[in-house]
Parts: sequence; C-alpha cells; structure tokens
Amino acid sequence: MKGKVTYGSKPLVYPMPAAIIGSMVDGKANFMTIAYCGVVNNNPAMVAIGSNPSHHTMKGIREHKTFSVNIPSTSMAEKTDYVGIYSGRDVDKSKIFDVHYGVLSNAPLIAESPVTLECRVREMLDIGGNDTIIIGEVVESYIDESCMTDGVPDALKIDPLIYTPNDRKYWSLGDTKGDGWSIGTSLE
Amino acid sequence: MKGKVTYGSKPLVYPMPAAIIGSMVDGKANFMTIAYCGVVNNNPAMVAIGSNPSHHTMKGIREHKTFSVNIPSTSMAEKTDYVGIYSGRDVDKSKIFDVHYGVLSNAPLIAESPVTLECRVREMLDIGGNDTIIIGEVVESYIDESCMTDGVPDALKIDPLIYTPNDRKYWSLGDTKGDGWSIGTSLE
Repeated sequence: MKGKVTYGSKPLVYPMPAAIIGSMVDGKANFMTIAYCGVVNNNPAMVAIGSNPSHHTMKGIREHKTFSVNIPSTSMAEKTDYVGIYSGRDVDKSKIFDVHYGVLSNAPLIAESPVTLECRVREMLDIGGNDTIIIGEVVESYIDESCMTDGVPDALKIDPLIYTPNDRKYWSLGDTKGDGWSIGTSLE
Repeated sequence: MKGKVTYGSKPLVYPMPAAIIGSMVDGKANFMTIAYCGVVNNNPAMVAIGSNPSHHTMKGIREHKTFSVNIPSTSMAEKTDYVGIYSGRDVDKSKIFDVHYGVLSNAPLIAESPVTLECRVREMLDIGGNDTIIIGEVVESYIDESCMTDGVPDALKIDPLIYTPNDRKYWSLGDTKGDGWSIGTSLE
C-alpha cells in the first residue's frame, strides 16, 4: 500500500494501558504489569487481558479465579515498571504497595492506584497463541475521592500512566482534543 | 475503603483507544468507533473488542468473519467521533475515508489512519453481557512510513487519539514518563 510499511502480525493498538494485575499466589499478594488489557463488555463490565501462562501472577488467577486491575497514575511509573520486569518467583512484590481487599478475598487492590477493579474470571481461553486470554467480570470498582468531579471520575485527576508498544515508552495524557459524542456532530 | 468511592461494576480502564472498526456490510465499507478494544495475545497478534451486536458494522463482521482496526491520529478526532455517533443504517460512511484493502477482501482499511490492522475472527463470544466479545487475529498490519523511526513505529509521530470513559473526552499523548523495561530497575 502506498506510503505504508507492511509490518506483519503485530499487536499495534495505540494507546495501551499500563495495568497492574493483582492475584494471590501461595497466600501472598503478587502483581504484574500488562499492556494487554481492554474493556470488552459494558454491563456487566468485563475486561479482557492476555498474559503468558508461565507468569507467577497467572498461578494465582488459575487457582482462585479472581484478580484485580489497578490503574497506576504517572507518579507510580517506576513501581509499575518494576512489577512488570521482576517475577514474584524471584522477588517479594507483596510489600511494594499498600494492599487492601474489597468484596473478593483473593483480588489484592493497590491503595495508591486511583482506579481499581475487582474481577472474577468468566473465561480462560487458550486458542493457539502464546498467551492465555482471560475475560473477567468487574465485580466492584473503586476510585479515589480526590479523582471525582461532580460525581464522575475525572481523567485529568486520575492522571493515568499510558504505554505505547514498540518504542516501549510511558506517557501522561496531553491536551484534550474535544468531547466524545459531540465533536463529530459538526460533520453531519 | 478509606478515601475511595465504591463505583459498581464499571468498565474503568484508563486510557482507552479510539479504535475505528471497519467491516463490509451489504457490499459497502462501514466503520464504527469503539473504545472497547485491547490486545490479548502477542504471537500471533490478537485483539479483543466488545460491541453491542445490533451495530451495523457487526453485521459485516458476522457475515465475513473479518474486520479492520484503524488507529486514528488526533487530526482525525471529528471524523472518529462522527463514525461513532451515526449508524451506517442511516448514513453512508463508505465515503468518509479513503478506503483500501490488504490481504483480506472484506476488511476495509482507512488510508489516513497511521496504523491499521487486518483481522480474522477467531472467537465470537456471547457470555451473558449486553455486548458481543470478538477476538480477532491480526493477519497483517500497516504503518505510515512517516511514522517510523529507525524501523520502529514511533508513538509521537503516530500521534494517536486517546479516549477516556465517563468524562468522555479525547486526548493526545502528553509528556513521556520514561522507558518501559527500564525505569523500574532503579528500585531493585
């Protein structure tokens, strides 16, 4: 195609979250950072994640069928990267964050994350790729009071850490480019 | 939980992409914007999307079992919002973008999108939510030559449009917060 580079079967979604997935492994909270995480259902809310089944956090998800999704703010960039690099097999990641629990007993939530989700596994799919695909139903969500504006979660206050693949960089949100369900009406 | 608002079963992943999904409906290219889109497998690359089955674009995906994922740049904000608001049942969306095709004959690709993916449906799941979950294998991907730096897709040049839920706003990338697989080593 003119002006385009053909790049192969590559997972090129922009942007990606830098989601910290939590599970309980051998009685201890463990965490791993993954960019392979997105919403796939509105009501009830469901998220899909993909991870190599060998990861330590995956052991806890298989055992308890529960996990957490913790959205880090940009101030958590180093810790987010750390729990993505090192395995819970080699380092104890249970003390890195202040951990608490909601309605599920085996989905450790990170207190300093502005947005956290408790999830129950609905599907675990191994469909021929190197990763296991997990679809989780969001049982409950929590947002920092300080990140709410008029009762609605406020993206600028959440200040989410953003990830982009290939160049492997973290980012903050930049300038707003307009309101969704609104700016497109000008083209009608 | 102290300092937290309990917010219910809500799909709160930050940030979200503003992905434009393309399919061929009744012989015409059609597009819809969805934020419910993420990577779920590395090799072969797979994406998961969620959409209400009533959407016009979904008709084409069910029929041909193929679709495209088109990542818009911030300069495409109005058009991205437009194809998310209006249904292909009511307006002809086949002429909004310059459309071309890659290796699949029924996955219309948007030429002005800096990153596009051609996908073949691997799974369509209706597991009790209001949306159908589709897992697509990325058959081929395309990147604007002008968005490559030293052979690698460059997020700043791609300039992806970002979406956040609840406040329903579009954004650009902001400042970099460091290199992935790197800044976390300082905590070792």
